[in-house]
Amino acid sequence: MAANSSDQPISDQPVLEELDRAECLKLVAGGSVGRVAFDDGEGPTVIPVNYAVDGDTVIFRTSVTGRLNRSLMTAVVGGEVRAAFEVDRFDEADHAGWSVLVRGGAHPLSDEEKARVTPVDPWPGGDRDAWFRLTAMDVSGRRLHRP
Amino acid sequence: MAANSSDQPISDQPVLEELDRAECLKLVAGGSVGRVAFDDGEGPTVIPVNYAVDGDTVIFRTSVTGRLNRSLMTAVVGGEVRAAFEVDRFDEADHAGWSVLVRGGAHPLSDEEKARVTPVDPWPGGDRDAWFRLTAMDVSGRRLHRP
Repeated sequence: MAANSSDQPISDQPVLEELDRAECLKLVAGGSVGRVAFDDGEGPTVIPVNYAVDGDTVIFRTSVTGRLNRSLMTAVVGGEVRAAFEVDRFDEADHAGWSVLVRGGAHPLSDEEKARVTPVDPWPGGDRDAWFRLTAMDVSGRRLHRP
Repeated sequence: MAANSSDQPISDQPVLEELDRAECLKLVAGGSVGRVAFDDGEGPTVIPVNYAVDGDTVIFRTSVTGRLNRSLMTAVVGGEVRAAFEVDRFDEADHAGWSVLVRGGAHPLSDEEKARVTPVDPWPGGDRDAWFRLTAMDVSGRRLHRP
């Protein structure tokens, strides 16, 4: 992707580029681990989850008895909880990478909805029967690269 | 930590292990990109940052005119803003990895404090003169691996 030309000072200047919504959603669709942020009543918290993209929404699964579901269910007001979902990829060697942030409301899925959405494969296995859908109200992203 | 259910081949069962505070802080100290989550007035948001560990605190830098600093400064009440800081590493091929979450209060650093703390090298370069310190009130982490 990015050309290596570290012997020229000017090319060492990193470029921070805003990504448009379409590119952001494409990058999110290519990943499998993201991070859900929400307020669990004791301030902001962040939990990694496996996910799948379903149209303009993000589906993620967690354990019914786990802390994510307990916290999210506690935080749900009027059927949904405000949440942010972040996916990124960084290259430590090149000091480059990208990140996408999806903000919106998350709501728990009914069994009927679960059967209709893109399935999610949770790495930890076991009971992951609490499914959520985050609707992308706001999508933003940035890429850091060397020209 | 987690019990294996006996009806599946034991080597296929992923193990989700809670990490103690010392191990969490050690993992965080070995990284260079983390994610700060806070409420910017429109709900939770997540922003990747370069950081350094300074004792039991996390130091991160951002642009004075950037959205992170503007949001954090707006959110600061009584000198600090509630924030969460997340670092993780996942292996897509092995479906394994770890994550650490540091929760606490973040406050902007004075010029005098900046001179005393562990320096942070921000990949994007440029003006990154807004420094914050997150004090680790609560530290938790988990590792997902195959036994």
